[in-house]
Amino acid sequence: MSNASTDAGADLVRDLVDANHILYHQGIVDAFGHVSVRHDRDAGRFLLARNMAPARVQAGDILEYDVGSGEAIAPNPPRLYLERTIHSEIYKARSDVMAVVHNHSPAVLPFCIARGARLRPVCHMAGFLGGTGHDGPALFEIRDHAGLASDLLIRNRELGAALARTLGRSRVVLMRGHGCTVVADSLPVAVFRAVYTEVNAQLLLRSLPLGEVEYLSAGEADATRVTNEGQAARPWDLWREQARRSRHDDHAQ
Amino acid sequence: MSNASTDAGADLVRDLVDANHILYHQGIVDAFGHVSVRHDRDAGRFLLARNMAPARVQAGDILEYDVGSGEAIAPNPPRLYLERTIHSEIYKARSDVMAVVHNHSPAVLPFCIARGARLRPVCHMAGFLGGTGHDGPALFEIRDHAGLASDLLIRNRELGAALARTLGRSRVVLMRGHGCTVVADSLPVAVFRAVYTEVNAQLLLRSLPLGEVEYLSAGEADATRVTNEGQAARPWDLWREQARRSRHDDHAQ
Amino acid sequence: MSNASTDAGADLVRDLVDANHILYHQGIVDAFGHVSVRHDRDAGRFLLARNMAPARVQAGDILEYDVGSGEAIAPNPPRLYLERTIHSEIYKARSDVMAVVHNHSPAVLPFCIARGARLRPVCHMAGFLGGTGHDGPALFEIRDHAGLASDLLIRNRELGAALARTLGRSRVVLMRGHGCTVVADSLPVAVFRAVYTEVNAQLLLRSLPLGEVEYLSAGEADATRVTNEGQAARPWDLWREQARRSRHDDHAQ
Amino acid sequence: MSNASTDAGADLVRDLVDANHILYHQGIVDAFGHVSVRHDRDAGRFLLARNMAPARVQAGDILEYDVGSGEAIAPNPPRLYLERTIHSEIYKARSDVMAVVHNHSPAVLPFCIARGARLRPVCHMAGFLGGTGHDGPALFEIRDHAGLASDLLIRNRELGAALARTLGRSRVVLMRGHGCTVVADSLPVAVFRAVYTEVNAQLLLRSLPLGEVEYLSAGEADATRVTNEGQAARPWDLWREQARRSRHDDHAQ
Repeated sequence: MSNASTDAGADLVRDLVDANHILYHQGIVDAFGHVSVRHDRDAGRFLLARNMAPARVQAGDILEYDVGSGEAIAPNPPRLYLERTIHSEIYKARSDVMAVVHNHSPAVLPFCIARGARLRPVCHMAGFLGGTGHDGPALFEIRDHAGLASDLLIRNRELGAALARTLGRSRVVLMRGHGCTVVADSLPVAVFRAVYTEVNAQLLLRSLPLGEVEYLSAGEADATRVTNEGQAARPWDLWREQARRSRHDDHAQ
Repeated sequence: MSNASTDAGADLVRDLVDANHILYHQGIVDAFGHVSVRHDRDAGRFLLARNMAPARVQAGDILEYDVGSGEAIAPNPPRLYLERTIHSEIYKARSDVMAVVHNHSPAVLPFCIARGARLRPVCHMAGFLGGTGHDGPALFEIRDHAGLASDLLIRNRELGAALARTLGRSRVVLMRGHGCTVVADSLPVAVFRAVYTEVNAQLLLRSLPLGEVEYLSAGEADATRVTNEGQAARPWDLWREQARRSRHDDHAQ
Repeated sequence: MSNASTDAGADLVRDLVDANHILYHQGIVDAFGHVSVRHDRDAGRFLLARNMAPARVQAGDILEYDVGSGEAIAPNPPRLYLERTIHSEIYKARSDVMAVVHNHSPAVLPFCIARGARLRPVCHMAGFLGGTGHDGPALFEIRDHAGLASDLLIRNRELGAALARTLGRSRVVLMRGHGCTVVADSLPVAVFRAVYTEVNAQLLLRSLPLGEVEYLSAGEADATRVTNEGQAARPWDLWREQARRSRHDDHAQ
Repeated sequence: MSNASTDAGADLVRDLVDANHILYHQGIVDAFGHVSVRHDRDAGRFLLARNMAPARVQAGDILEYDVGSGEAIAPNPPRLYLERTIHSEIYKARSDVMAVVHNHSPAVLPFCIARGARLRPVCHMAGFLGGTGHDGPALFEIRDHAGLASDLLIRNRELGAALARTLGRSRVVLMRGHGCTVVADSLPVAVFRAVYTEVNAQLLLRSLPLGEVEYLSAGEADATRVTNEGQAARPWDLWREQARRSRHDDHAQ
């Protein structure tokens, strides 16, 4: 599983490969979606697979990109993700962010489509969706930036920068008619947040029909985030083991 | 995996076999449902399996049919799909159509049953459901053509032609109490549309209870369709690999 | 796979074993639920497994029962299903019935719990739920027969006879707070009906929130039932193959 | 599968390992959640795994704890579950309880979040949720005990004791924004109750939109509980076999 395209630590490359597989195995990405991590030796670069389905990513598919331009570092790269500026512009705007996940996870999408729906935290695993100064992810409406006839994709740096402005200091931003983007200061926490954004969304979808819902208070959201993200290694380890075992059974190379 | 029943390209036959398996593996067809492709050397013929569950189709099960009559070309064919005129009459009416999928996919059916429900696109993967001149699939009501006591099936050319008229220039037509039919100018795009019609339906079913929903504008629907269907090879490749691996595990020959 | 407990045809015993596995694999039964078939050489007897989970039934677990008493024929039988009189009293009341399925399938149960909910057919695979003289299954309320403090089970012949009277000439009867019982003139059709009662229930649960629903007319229900039940071998063959393959993978003997 | 950390019966340790795997395989626990059993030779001790995902628990991971303190008996134990006082304080308050399950099962959580929602029994497998003197589980609101900015976890004996008081003589207590805790006089019954609390919750979520729901009467709840929990070995045996087979396929040691 060698990778000649980057001088980032081999552990970081392997974790990024695992993150791709975990997100697929947990139902957060399907044929589409992507995850990146900032380079561990140069904050001006980040790692992201070439344009391919996350389930099939291997170490040799990981490329280095330039935060400034969103382009691959190496000359004549293979086909790149059209929406790579989601990642580069967030790394540019947020020096605290070390990992970014973009996905179309199925229970989150209704909150990107129903006007006025708020994806605020209702369970202790999803405190990061709220907290002091946070009241559920903001909604990025691409019509405000690309008019009424776009294909909804973040196709260039300008749209990536607009998305990063909507994200602000938050951990999650919703993208109308499209999906969401999740950020964190490490890959395990970014993957944790992507999974539990979906879990919280599933829970809210099931709870709202029963009546008025009790959301976490700002204090509860902050306290649960600190507690649970301090333990992010535990679900990461389990999910990684499950994803690896599933791939083994699937005869993937 | 030889097939003596057709002189169509071996690649086309193999793609049709894969399409059957992908649609099954993606939950779009079950024991019922079928997919066809127009012959690559003679626009007056098309390929469709004999009457059997899609999951079990192999190259030797693919037969050639006549667009004009809807009948198998070879004499003494095995049992044919009762609803083969869904395919033949659409190929007759639409020279642009190269592939047809008929299915009873579970989230689409509510839109074929609830009066007034419109399956309009809400996410960027399903733009083909809308666009300029399109506002969600039309509903084919068989009572208008076969009276109040039919078995709801497209049993002959007249009913197939009526369905094709309801489809018009659209990409999808809903069939009340029955399912839907999806068309495209290639097998990968037809399969893509069948899968994402179901995904869009699932999303709408989850979103409508949250309040008013934001649909794609006509411009967004057209732009997303062009972008995503230009990339249809990517999900096709992943789904085909998954379906083949699943069949291998199922010990099918 | 010998079975010394019955002189019924070996094919019938094997089909009953397969029916148990199909119903489990299709999600219609879990640890609970059971399926029987009338003896092919003596209408006064029927075959039913001993008291065990359907997933684990093998030919050696099939016992013969007496329609009149609901008891096992052989002396010193293993533990029997507590609710065997569901089967015996239906065979007694309905000379046309050759197979009986009792289950707690998950989408049907809401229709056994919500007052006034009617499980009428909305799709062409479930016509048997309606038709001339049929307007959705009746609901058996055990309080009318066993008072307010029963354990809801059909524990004796009197309750079995009461259930059979509620079933009447129908194909399905709902049992409040409990599940349903499905009958047919063959095992493949009984299994087909059990599966598509669940499918129709899932479809209605998803459709009712969208607005007014179009049910099959009585004529459509009768016509679709005749057409689809004439083809019941096709899903039966596919489901049996899938259930056998799944059991093989599960290392069952 | 030796275990040097306890002198409890080897069968009890093996059953606790199986309970962990069953609860994972049945979707009741995921990376989080835990199950314990009171020591069979000393009512002042109980068995619980070290802090790890239930799916991966083996006999060597089972530790002994002291009911009085909630601490591990052995010196220098591995990392312990933060919420072990859920178990110890319930064993302290309830001499009848021999097993405790804590989980975040997905259909139960809406009843821990929607104000006024009551998880009362609607099907015969869930009578234990009701009965004479019981009318659906009570809701533990941690704000009443730990203020408005807690992380919602039962972090110490005081909070464990408060939870035990809310549980009272019941079999299940709901924990707002968090999950639930289920108790019984044996491991098979505790696991049965955890599974069927989730099943009853799923059923209620699907039924409430259809209209007014018929709950079990107190007499029915008591009678069904006695009948079904007397048969708890049957689902336990099936689930254990399925969980073991699944683990074997997953190449776990």
